[in-house]
Parts: sequence; structure tokens; C-alpha cells
Amino acid sequence: MTATWVPGADATPYTVANLPYGVFSRPGEPARAGVRIGDHVLDLAPVLHDEVFATGSLNAFMARGRTAWQDTRRLLQRLLSADAKEAPANRAALEPHLIPLRQVRLHLPVEIGDYVDFYCSLEHATNVGHIFRPGGQALMPNWRHLPVGYHGRSGTVVVSGTPVIRPRGQRVATPDGEPVLAPTAKLDIEAELGFVVGTPTRPGESAGDFADHVFGVTLLNDWSARDIQAWEYVPLGPFLGKSFATSVSAWVTPLEALEAARIPGRAQDPEPLAYLRRSEPWGLDISMEITLNGEPVSSPPYREMYWTPDQMLAHLTVNGASLRTGDLYASGTVSGDEPARRGSLLEITWNGAEPVKLSDGQSRSFLEDGDTVTITATAPGAGGTRIALGEVTGTILPGLA
Amino acid sequence: MTATWVPGADATPYTVANLPYGVFSRPGEPARAGVRIGDHVLDLAPVLHDEVFATGSLNAFMARGRTAWQDTRRLLQRLLSADAKEAPANRAALEPHLIPLRQVRLHLPVEIGDYVDFYCSLEHATNVGHIFRPGGQALMPNWRHLPVGYHGRSGTVVVSGTPVIRPRGQRVATPDGEPVLAPTAKLDIEAELGFVVGTPTRPGESAGDFADHVFGVTLLNDWSARDIQAWEYVPLGPFLGKSFATSVSAWVTPLEALEAARIPGRAQDPEPLAYLRRSEPWGLDISMEITLNGEPVSSPPYREMYWTPDQMLAHLTVNGASLRTGDLYASGTVSGDEPARRGSLLEITWNGAEPVKLSDGQSRSFLEDGDTVTITATAPGAGGTRIALGEVTGTILPGLA
Repeated sequence: MTATWVPGADATPYTVANLPYGVFSRPGEPARAGVRIGDHVLDLAPVLHDEVFATGSLNAFMARGRTAWQDTRRLLQRLLSADAKEAPANRAALEPHLIPLRQVRLHLPVEIGDYVDFYCSLEHATNVGHIFRPGGQALMPNWRHLPVGYHGRSGTVVVSGTPVIRPRGQRVATPDGEPVLAPTAKLDIEAELGFVVGTPTRPGESAGDFADHVFGVTLLNDWSARDIQAWEYVPLGPFLGKSFATSVSAWVTPLEALEAARIPGRAQDPEPLAYLRRSEPWGLDISMEITLNGEPVSSPPYREMYWTPDQMLAHLTVNGASLRTGDLYASGTVSGDEPARRGSLLEITWNGAEPVKLSDGQSRSFLEDGDTVTITATAPGAGGTRIALGEVTGTILPGLA
Repeated sequence: MTATWVPGADATPYTVANLPYGVFSRPGEPARAGVRIGDHVLDLAPVLHDEVFATGSLNAFMARGRTAWQDTRRLLQRLLSADAKEAPANRAALEPHLIPLRQVRLHLPVEIGDYVDFYCSLEHATNVGHIFRPGGQALMPNWRHLPVGYHGRSGTVVVSGTPVIRPRGQRVATPDGEPVLAPTAKLDIEAELGFVVGTPTRPGESAGDFADHVFGVTLLNDWSARDIQAWEYVPLGPFLGKSFATSVSAWVTPLEALEAARIPGRAQDPEPLAYLRRSEPWGLDISMEITLNGEPVSSPPYREMYWTPDQMLAHLTVNGASLRTGDLYASGTVSGDEPARRGSLLEITWNGAEPVKLSDGQSRSFLEDGDTVTITATAPGAGGTRIALGEVTGTILPGLA
């Protein structure tokens, strides 16, 4: 891997093999795009002499398409390299635009168009089916034929670090009880990966090559109020149990940084219809970690997901629905086959029956006010390195009674 | 009612009692906001000397809030009045900015934030329940306790007149059959009313007074592929069966124009929870008409809807989900108690069992390529008039095989 002249960066998982994009500001200055290297953000507009990076979101850059993404990444890798002959000159030119992360505020990196959430983990779908429909069929007949998904609320997608206000809503204590309006008693997380669309499609057109359309990856926490969700979701799906907040990481990892993480993806039985068959390996060997108030509670394995992101994109557009730059779609909860590898408290605690024990003697079935949940992830990077995908974190605030 | 000096306008349902807003352009000119009077559109930016009307959508104007909406409407009514002492002067000043509708192209009037579709007709929900879940429970236990809703795709909301490309998708011929990828064989409409949000809310805040937040009303056709929907919708709700296109009228009727149409709304049993109780009458006495290839097929009665739009807004925000200017929420299919008053072909033809007969000897179970569906509506206006809510129309084009 190429070393960088940026002080300390090669000792972090944010080397030139990574280079995620984000949007930042310093006090009193407008928000603009940057790339993360080590513990610094490089201010792109002045460095690349390109106003596309001064617009306050990544959308205009993402709209330029894959060749522009590749060219920009290659150029940044060269400019940041310690090995290049022109490294001293590059360093002199770039250092004034290299800002310590502690001096900046990070913003939502993308102006979100539509937000779609899928349901791609076999283990998660099976677990939720058992919990929400006890005695019924856990996995619906359609589940192995298509990546089940639905639209979420894009206006409440927030950047990592934004507090999450506990929602209230209708819920029932018993299946045949009367509903009450109350703050959720089952506030939960869903650890997911989000995929950000750069290149749009026209109405009636199905998306072609996944890597032509998807710019990069975020970590995503699909906060969920399980009691509200359980009462409302039949027959039109989740609504207020999810719509209050969805958090994404401030850093968007470009798909190209994940080249070494690509794996074939899990075997599928039955073989899906032709439009869903994988032409290239787009499974991703990404390891996720969930901490609750700083303590590790789970390590969801993204590599084990049943449906891969190229399949989600093919499905999302097979009906001719158009994509916009900034559309976001997510994997659904990433869950492995045992409690410490599941991506939601619903599954980890089996709907509260087996609370998580914390080291201070406390335990949690679901989240309490003041709790902080942080999701991080790493993946193999170029040259045998390991890259990090930032973090998505949020703290629960009390809400309306 | 005040007469207007605009030639011919008083003989149309677009008098000064109506004055819907839209976005228009003439060839080679930028899109800008106008108000409809008779068969003309009044170009608002030069008339009101206000650049908010030159932005290409109504959003910036809607964001100003209710007092601005009221003041603007009052001012326009005065400027267009034939009775005012200054009418000759007003006419001289405004006539250069009064453009015949046949000279303009109409655009999507609103930059849509999130699009939510509800399910507010008791008759529709009951009919669909019987058709989609034969032998099962037609109405779910939650239905009478809350207005069931879900998020739709805002990126595929299109303005009236936009062709609709027939979607393809996974569907199964029989309940235990294998899915195939094919163009939908059950392309349908849903005649609805859409509500456009002007004034936003903050995260954690529930919307207060309906009329403070909702700017106006559109007609809406929620095009639906019933075979795709039936296979995909369990357990997360409709997705590709709806996401390919949703059409709205080019004209947004301001809530104030519907003052004379306000009615208490249908009795509800059981009485809903306090946050859903109606404090003011926001039922609307709006009569809708659906034509298929020019022939009337149904007259859905909006006045008979079970859940009223103030209740939808209260529910949408009770969990603290924030509203953005430009958010759109719709009523769900408007259906009365007999076939000729239902808002979808699914219900009118009972899933194809009782096709609609057309005068040329043809019949329709669902839509064929080349079919045109148009939805219009009228309501009582001020001074004993009747106002029209524009139209939402679309023609089916063949799509991907």
C-alpha cells in the first residue's frame, strides 16, 4: 500500500486505501466536501479547484458518474502519497487545506432522495418472523425469491451524532388489548449498511452495472420502536415505528475502497430469477461491531447476508422506477446465527426475554433514555490493509409523553 | 361571489373563489409559479414583484406559512376582481401577465419531500382485504384505531399528463406457483386526494393545527400493479407494485378555497385516541369522477372517507417525525359502497371478475397499453359556486418485457 505524508495517517484505518468522503464545516464557515485521511479532513474544493465540492452535499459530485469518481480517487491518492516524486510539493500545497477532525463539525453527507430499506438477512427475517408472528410462518413464501423491501422516511435520515428523541405512538400491551398512546417501551436499533446512489436512471429503465450507479457505502442505524411497529405494520408495513429517525455515518466509503472486500455472496436456494442473478461478486466482507454505552454487545457479519447489494439494486429498478442521485437503500438488519452476532436488541434479547448484561450490573432489554449506541465496521483494504467505515452513533433523549 | 374581469373566467369553475397554484413555462422560458383563473394562468412573480414565485416550484412560497398564504390569496382576489374601484387599473397592469393555458406547459408544482400514502376509506380497505386475503380477516384489528399508512416513492411522483410506462415485476399465477418476471397483467389506478405540506415541524414535535401546516390539495392517482403487489407486500407492505409512478394534478387547490366544502367527517366507532380526535370539521365534500378513455367509470365520494386529513397529519407526526415543506400525503383510494363509486379497477371489477363495459363493445378488467385514465373533482366554493380541482391524467405506454 502507498504510504502517505499526512502525519500519523498510516497508523490509522484511514489510509490512502480508504479515503471516505464527507461534508464538514468549521465554525462560521459553510459546509463543504472533504475526504478523510487519518485524523484529518482534506478540504476538496480549494485543493481540486472544483466548486462541485463546495455545494454542501456530495450529490453534485456523485452525479458526475463513475469515471469522475475513479479519476478523483486516483488523483487524491497520488496527491496524498509519500512515495511520489512530487510528494514534497504536494504536501506544501495541500497542508493548508488539511484540517484536524476535532476542529470540524460533520454534516449529513448526502441530500437524500428516496430511502429504501431491505430485509436481506435470512437469520434476521427468520428471527423477526418468529417473534412478531409466533406460531405462524417465520419466512414468507416470497422471501427467498426476492429481496423484500419498503420505502422509509428520507426526511428523518440524520447524520451520526444527532440525538434520537424517543418516539411515542399507539401500542397495545396484549394482542387483544386496547391501544394507548405512550412513549415506546421497546426502542431498538438495526445495524445495517446503506448504499448511496450516484448515477440516476430514467423512468422505465432498469439499472445496469451496480458499480456504475452506486457511489459508496454508509453505516446505518434504522432506529425502531418495536411496540409501535408490531401494532401498525399489517398490512402496509412499518411506518411510525421507523419514521422518527434513521442515522447514517458521516463518511461515505467509496465502492472502490471495498475492492479487496468483495466476495461471491452466500449461496441461494432456489436460484433467483435471471434479473437477480449475480454477474459479479458483490458480497462484501465487512465486519460490524455494536457497542451500547461503550460496551460491545454484538458483531454482525455482513458477509453472511443472503441478498447482495447488486441484487437489491436490480430489484429496486426492475419495475422501471427511476433512481435519483442521492437515493439511499439499506441492507436491513445484519444478523448472524447466534445472539452475539445479531444486529438488533429485539433479536439479541429475544424480545426482552434474555436481557443484555452490562458490566456495571445493569441490563437492557431495549434502550433507555441516555443510552448511546455506536456501530462501527471494518473491511479488507488494498495491499493487505484494513479500512474502517467510520461510525454511526446516537444517544436517546426523552420525548413527548 | 366576486366577479372577475378576466374574460370568460366566471363561466368556468376557476373563478376567484378557486385560484389554484401551479408551475408553468412557455417554450424557452424558465418554469415559474402561477395561479389559474378561467382558462388563463397569471404569472405571479412580475405581478406580485416577488422572486419567491420564480423558483420553479411552490416550495419557497409554501414555506412562508399560513399568514403569507392568506395574504397572497386575498391580494390576488382583489387584483382579479371586477367589482373593485381600481379594477380598470388592475386589469391594465395584470393583462400582460395573463397567459392562455394552451400556450403553457404545466410542471410538477411541488418539489416533493416524503410521500406517504394512507388507507382511509373503510369500503376500500374492506374490499381489498376480501380480494387479497380471501377467507381471512378483511379489516385488520388496527384499522379503526389509526389511519394506516406507509411511505411511497417520492422520486416517481409525476405531474398530470406524464405517460405511465407499464411496469414489470415478479408475479405468480397461482398462490403456490413459482414467480416469473413479466409485465404486470393487472395495472390499476387508485383515485385519491393528496395533501401538500407547507409549514414544517421540528424533530420530536407533533404537528398542531392542520390548516397551519397543510397548504393545499391535489388530485392523485396511485398507479398500482396488483399482481406484483400481491406477491411482494407481506410483511413489509407495497413496494414495486406502486413505486413506478404516482401522478398528481398540476394545480394545487389552496385549503382556503375549500372552506365551503368542509364537513364534520364520518362518525367513528370506536372513538379514536385523544390525539386523533377532530377539533374542527376537516371532512371535505369533494366529488370525484374517473374516466377511462373518456368514458365515466366511477364517481368516488371523498366526503365518505373514514379518516379525515387532519387525523392523517396528527398520526403522521405523533411519533415526532418531522415534516418538510413539500411533503405530500395522500388519502388512499376513495371508494364508496357500490362498484360505480369505487376508486380502483380492482374493486370496480372485483379483481377482474366483473369487467367494466365500454361503449365501443370493449371491456376492461385492468388497464391496457394506450388506455388513458383521467380523474377530476369538484367541491362547493364560496358564494354558492362550485370549484374544480383540475385533473390528473395519464396514458399507459408499453414497458420493458
